[in-house]
Amino acid sequence: MTTRVSVDFRDGAVVSAADRGFTYGDGLFETLRVVDGAIPLWTRHVDRLTDGCARLRMPPPDASALRAEILRLCSGWSDVVVRATVSRGVGERGYALPAPQRPTVVVSAAPLALDPVAAHEGIAIRLCDMRLAAQPALAGLKHLNRLEQVLARAEWSDPGIGEGLMRDAEGRVVCATAANLFAVVDGRVHTPPVDQGGVAGVARAEILATQAVAVAPLSLDQLLGATEVFLTSAVRGILPVRALGARTWQPGPVARALQAHWASLGLPLPSRSKDRDR
Amino acid sequence: MTTRVSVDFRDGAVVSAADRGFTYGDGLFETLRVVDGAIPLWTRHVDRLTDGCARLRMPPPDASALRAEILRLCSGWSDVVVRATVSRGVGERGYALPAPQRPTVVVSAAPLALDPVAAHEGIAIRLCDMRLAAQPALAGLKHLNRLEQVLARAEWSDPGIGEGLMRDAEGRVVCATAANLFAVVDGRVHTPPVDQGGVAGVARAEILATQAVAVAPLSLDQLLGATEVFLTSAVRGILPVRALGARTWQPGPVARALQAHWASLGLPLPSRSKDRDR
Repeated sequence: MTTRVSVDFRDGAVVSAADRGFTYGDGLFETLRVVDGAIPLWTRHVDRLTDGCARLRMPPPDASALRAEILRLCSGWSDVVVRATVSRGVGERGYALPAPQRPTVVVSAAPLALDPVAAHEGIAIRLCDMRLAAQPALAGLKHLNRLEQVLARAEWSDPGIGEGLMRDAEGRVVCATAANLFAVVDGRVHTPPVDQGGVAGVARAEILATQAVAVAPLSLDQLLGATEVFLTSAVRGILPVRALGARTWQPGPVARALQAHWASLGLPLPSRSKDRDR
Repeated sequence: MTTRVSVDFRDGAVVSAADRGFTYGDGLFETLRVVDGAIPLWTRHVDRLTDGCARLRMPPPDASALRAEILRLCSGWSDVVVRATVSRGVGERGYALPAPQRPTVVVSAAPLALDPVAAHEGIAIRLCDMRLAAQPALAGLKHLNRLEQVLARAEWSDPGIGEGLMRDAEGRVVCATAANLFAVVDGRVHTPPVDQGGVAGVARAEILATQAVAVAPLSLDQLLGATEVFLTSAVRGILPVRALGARTWQPGPVARALQAHWASLGLPLPSRSKDRDR
């Protein structure tokens, strides 16, 4: 697949082997969906990136320059997935922060072909054995230390499984490997907190800002008792969950309403006709 | 400072921006001391790297080729610090493991000038606020997800402080940001377990293999009550701790004996005369 890449705002696809992104996973990233030259959730991406830089004690990139670079790489493409990575840049040996810090900015863009079946009919998910550690200093950030997610995703290869749920050490469900989790329990929309582990997703933030949601711990039993379950992602949107093991659901009204909201933001559902064409 | 770098066994200093070391911190590293063309703790480094690759489901590098590459980069230098990084290599978007996996091997080498004052008189350390999360699936590994250590090291800039102690969520002392911790408590040599967090250091493994050590949780009170405290590192060797806040120690007999053992392995103490020359 065609991918366009730039490093520090110039075409290029390599970084220094002494970049702290490579040596320590010392940095942050955003994954964005760009549609016809617009980035509908841009402000929320910038807010998270800026907050993350502050928490990691890194100077944030210039947001307007970053936006321009993203759009430059997307030019001519209609539906695009973009990853923007900001690492702490090149460092000497040792953990001490470089002085001055000169962060590295990598942007990569590729045409996006979302799965219409997943969006319309939902996905089957599984429960991962890999647990999320409780680390409040890093929780919520979309940082580059992602071995927990890598090991969780490595637990399955069945292409029929669309995502894996991750639990904390106490067994509460927190999120998927690359998406946030919502469930309708007793008629209320719930999502687990991400203050000990997991990523504070941009799609999750959009939902929290637009409707009443109970942010509260969620047990596996509560999840299995939910009337509706869906995952959220800035790139993949609202994904109904249709199965977790033997438990099955139909796509529900909350997910459908959020998919309509997504479309109104400029993030359309993939067309079913594309599916027939494949 | 002169640094020699190779990537995949050829001179070079850049990696792909799509390398999973850069995108996810997905990999491992070793830091080694090479003296006059010998790597005294080589077998222990290889053992840890091989174990780490197995736990991360990565194919391990060829150990003899890696050793030859390290020695090639060290040629002509007497005392050298080497970092060998093995990442999972280039990957597509998403956490799923690449198939096949083609790990990236980066070796960097630079002349080593150890601090003779630290080795002979000891170092002052501090207690970090940043805690180690409990993650048994990653504990002990020298993996590339090092944001906890980066944030802990960012807590101080006083050059008079040589290291920072890290505690687990329950407040037990576990290790320093880049060294393991030993203490003589009630006449017995103790070191904390690293099965929930921290790195299973190569120097620590050497000590555990050569003398009786109690591997047991260590409270801060026990540490402050110790008659002798020292840190261990494959590169820096045995570092007596001379102060933690107001509590002070003299370099003790256990640390001195281990320094002598280190010298017998071919890892000599830095000479005091070098200090006078600086």
